[in-house]
Amino acid sequence: MASKTPVGFIGLGNMGNPMAKNLVKHGYPVIVYDVFPEACKDFQDLGAQVTESPADVAERADRIITMLPSSPHAKEVYTGANGILKKVKKGSLLIDSSTIDPVVSKELAKAAENTGAVFMDAPVSGGVGAALAGNLTFMVGGVEQEFNAAKELLTCMGSNVIYCGEVGTGQAAKICNNMLLAISMIGTAEAMNLGIRLGLDPKLLAKILNMSSGRCWSSDTYNPVPGVMEGVPSANNYQGGFGTTLMAKDLGLAQISATNTKTPVPLGSQAHQIYRMMCAKGYALKDFSAVFQFLREEESL
Amino acid sequence: MASKTPVGFIGLGNMGNPMAKNLVKHGYPVIVYDVFPEACKDFQDLGAQVTESPADVAERADRIITMLPSSPHAKEVYTGANGILKKVKKGSLLIDSSTIDPVVSKELAKAAENTGAVFMDAPVSGGVGAALAGNLTFMVGGVEQEFNAAKELLTCMGSNVIYCGEVGTGQAAKICNNMLLAISMIGTAEAMNLGIRLGLDPKLLAKILNMSSGRCWSSDTYNPVPGVMEGVPSANNYQGGFGTTLMAKDLGLAQISATNTKTPVPLGSQAHQIYRMMCAKGYALKDFSAVFQFLREEESL
Amino acid sequence: MASKTPVGFIGLGNMGNPMAKNLVKHGYPVIVYDVFPEACKDFQDLGAQVTESPADVAERADRIITMLPSSPHAKEVYTGANGILKKVKKGSLLIDSSTIDPVVSKELAKAAENTGAVFMDAPVSGGVGAALAGNLTFMVGGVEQEFNAAKELLTCMGSNVIYCGEVGTGQAAKICNNMLLAISMIGTAEAMNLGIRLGLDPKLLAKILNMSSGRCWSSDTYNPVPGVMEGVPSANNYQGGFGTTLMAKDLGLAQISATNTKTPVPLGSQAHQIYRMMCAKGYALKDFSAVFQFLREEESL
Amino acid sequence: MASKTPVGFIGLGNMGNPMAKNLVKHGYPVIVYDVFPEACKDFQDLGAQVTESPADVAERADRIITMLPSSPHAKEVYTGANGILKKVKKGSLLIDSSTIDPVVSKELAKAAENTGAVFMDAPVSGGVGAALAGNLTFMVGGVEQEFNAAKELLTCMGSNVIYCGEVGTGQAAKICNNMLLAISMIGTAEAMNLGIRLGLDPKLLAKILNMSSGRCWSSDTYNPVPGVMEGVPSANNYQGGFGTTLMAKDLGLAQISATNTKTPVPLGSQAHQIYRMMCAKGYALKDFSAVFQFLREEESL
Repeated sequence: MASKTPVGFIGLGNMGNPMAKNLVKHGYPVIVYDVFPEACKDFQDLGAQVTESPADVAERADRIITMLPSSPHAKEVYTGANGILKKVKKGSLLIDSSTIDPVVSKELAKAAENTGAVFMDAPVSGGVGAALAGNLTFMVGGVEQEFNAAKELLTCMGSNVIYCGEVGTGQAAKICNNMLLAISMIGTAEAMNLGIRLGLDPKLLAKILNMSSGRCWSSDTYNPVPGVMEGVPSANNYQGGFGTTLMAKDLGLAQISATNTKTPVPLGSQAHQIYRMMCAKGYALKDFSAVFQFLREEESL
Repeated sequence: MASKTPVGFIGLGNMGNPMAKNLVKHGYPVIVYDVFPEACKDFQDLGAQVTESPADVAERADRIITMLPSSPHAKEVYTGANGILKKVKKGSLLIDSSTIDPVVSKELAKAAENTGAVFMDAPVSGGVGAALAGNLTFMVGGVEQEFNAAKELLTCMGSNVIYCGEVGTGQAAKICNNMLLAISMIGTAEAMNLGIRLGLDPKLLAKILNMSSGRCWSSDTYNPVPGVMEGVPSANNYQGGFGTTLMAKDLGLAQISATNTKTPVPLGSQAHQIYRMMCAKGYALKDFSAVFQFLREEESL
Repeated sequence: MASKTPVGFIGLGNMGNPMAKNLVKHGYPVIVYDVFPEACKDFQDLGAQVTESPADVAERADRIITMLPSSPHAKEVYTGANGILKKVKKGSLLIDSSTIDPVVSKELAKAAENTGAVFMDAPVSGGVGAALAGNLTFMVGGVEQEFNAAKELLTCMGSNVIYCGEVGTGQAAKICNNMLLAISMIGTAEAMNLGIRLGLDPKLLAKILNMSSGRCWSSDTYNPVPGVMEGVPSANNYQGGFGTTLMAKDLGLAQISATNTKTPVPLGSQAHQIYRMMCAKGYALKDFSAVFQFLREEESL
Repeated sequence: MASKTPVGFIGLGNMGNPMAKNLVKHGYPVIVYDVFPEACKDFQDLGAQVTESPADVAERADRIITMLPSSPHAKEVYTGANGILKKVKKGSLLIDSSTIDPVVSKELAKAAENTGAVFMDAPVSGGVGAALAGNLTFMVGGVEQEFNAAKELLTCMGSNVIYCGEVGTGQAAKICNNMLLAISMIGTAEAMNLGIRLGLDPKLLAKILNMSSGRCWSSDTYNPVPGVMEGVPSANNYQGGFGTTLMAKDLGLAQISATNTKTPVPLGSQAHQIYRMMCAKGYALKDFSAVFQFLREEESL
């Protein structure tokens, strides 16, 4: 364990914090940075080095993981005035676990390549709970011969590490999955609501769907109708889970990718609009399965 | 076996023909009618009684199954000038396996009740193959105490017979399932197409979706992308399966039910429009998973 | 004036009341019926005959106008147990100004024809204000040779009386206009909202649209953005005008007509869903231009 | 006239060519550049200076107009290795008439400001015909005190020059107008198609819409139904006019702006998808009013 070389970690938010701690648990010395200094406090207590900038991290570690909220943050952390690429060492391995536009991932990979470093995108699926438990899924894009090096670190934080192809395909896989998830969740909410109004018992309807061709993860594992399943956000007033605002963000990325590639996504774009409207109607922090409640509300007239 | 009383069967099309034959195989004498006399030929050869009208069937059998293409046909067969209700015997059991508007099912049930007969709606899922093999699923709505009597007959033709609730709920269950199916099929086609254009291998993407929250029947059992699975319509130029025009019809029923109950179905109505456009663009007779091909076509510019 | 023969009027609600009064002003003796007896009070005071049923009206008048809220009401008034057709005289002229499914108009026309009467559909555009002022627009469908007889009465209540074609085309014209209106109103709201968020002044943006190809009645005559125009519902907290719930009803009729004729209406069906959602979110009684407010709400996060 | 100082013009395509010629007609010496040297031929014959790069143009002219197909082209022309900003003189006026993402306009304005130059966005409405006739409409964003200097040049090419606000608002105005245009064009096509299928004469229906609340530029000036109007693309097999592929591009920009500002645009995004699908179905080069034809096609079944 003592021989492990340090790993940089930038972005210590709700997800980054438990991810970095899992690296520590696996014996890696970590060198951390966050734009909010207080986010580093936990790690100082754990004996980690706390630095002043992404460039500082790059000076001291040749393997760095970043976990950031959006494309502009990722650009700043990599290519900004005090960014990683200002001081990155040749041969360094840079792994970005943010969910961002795959076009930006490719730009960052190119910029990294110009400095002699290797950049891989490795967005995650699974939320804070999975980050704490160390069983995230990582979808990894980048040069295949570097995949094993990345996997060594990522398996400390996740139970599934999947190689998807060239740089950007990790993001692509995540975006496509979440777009389909949003569509089938809204579809489940519509079908359950229509069935209830036509006189069906919700538990019975869910059972019928789940043994038929309407079956999907949203109907059989994460049903959005209160009373149908236990242990899911719909059983707990849509608290916890995957927030509507995060789903809206991912659908925005899907929309931008579809626009850039001239791909028609009629239901994906409509799902985006629905989650956008929900954010504006007070659902931003509720689980995305609350679309059932959003569509369910009765006309009071 | 010899003691079995005759069963009437009206509507001997692609589905009705094998369904009625399965009744014969189970030892029921059948009394048949179809608006096209040649459709009765098979049954004449099997020794069945062929009649001149639905009313004739009702005169000779007190259990009747109907399998018709749409609401107007069902109205005509039950309440027309030579319809079943003109000569139905008190206490008769009338089972309609057509897929029609649940409002019409309720009207027919009321009209039947006025003559002292019992009407149940029992639409099927599963196509011609399941009808031949006798493993259809029946979703049954109607008075609960008559369910066992209906089930006795329906189990000759199907492997699943589910009681859904009062009259019309069989239709409701079918409509809701097929609406969700259409939505998740289009969603799967969009997600697969977007992923491919973003550089992902289709088999790998399907695998990732199927182990993630995007998983659905359309992705894991009936994938619409040629080359991903074998034995599905997408592997056979979208021949066989469930035709786009039939899906468009079911989505029209869902739309009418949603309009009547003031239920918002934003993705369901968009799915309806997409299948409607496909019908007009030459896809009417292809399997409904051909939406992948419809969305896939490249701009030639 | 004294020689004018009486005219029947059935349905004395918000619209029917002022319409019937305009007939009285033009010297026609009226014979009235409404399902709520108190609605007839005004007319008793004016010396009109008040009757007990639609059939009674038909016994005493050979020209009858009906103004009813929906298809089932119209069916009941014409073909119910005490309906017009029970006692209608041969050669009577029946004019239905309700907004209903054109399929129902055709059914009623056929039923009237069987009794030797003539039925025309003549839905109106213009709201309560236009009904009071006697400047409604009537869109009339039916046998062309009866149009002048209908026009004689309708010009007492409206300033435009347009012959549209065979029975049902009056409804068709109204439904098509209102569907396009709903689409362009939502489009105007989206464009104004997007422009404002991109930094444009709303009045300036409206001016640019109105001199450009985005110009429409919703942008130049009934702008949905508060502060852009005076004398419109958006200047008065969306009070008055054409209620969201009425627009949702008309879009439901458009949807049913489109489904019946297999016509793709992707934006029309989406507009229907949006107005349906607005009804469920407290906008039912606000003017339909309140869609700007519905889409405008900011995310509070 | 002789005293006029030269004006640079970069981008001599279908639109740029006649625009630059109108500057010449008004007596301005022009200094031109295009990535395709043959595009400069016309101007060489007219005695204009032809240069080797945008930087060359910037060295010789302190007023420059650019007319480019998309955001990446604009970035390259302004900030590329041989871009304008490499050699621009302090105080130069840079006017970009391309239709691009307003975010990119703002980035270019900032980059120009860093070199001491002023950047304005001035996209046009009106097509090749208006460019030839010199009656384009310019929507201008940028520092207000520079507007008159810009207007002096733009009035040589257009009949309307509108100041919209800070940098990017010219793009915003254009994007919003075109989004509303696309929505009302599709809405008009849907309403006309539905009306025709319900039995209305198309000319009569157009007349009714145009005197009612459904009226819009697409119905009264550019009706998409063949036979309703003369002198519009629908009267000429949808040739000429504004191509479907260009509309799809503008709707993509609207979509990106809406995503960036978290603005719900449910019909705008659906219009984008419809024009995207049309491009893939052979309509790319037809006028955008061909959506009527696209939706009109009958089911052959």
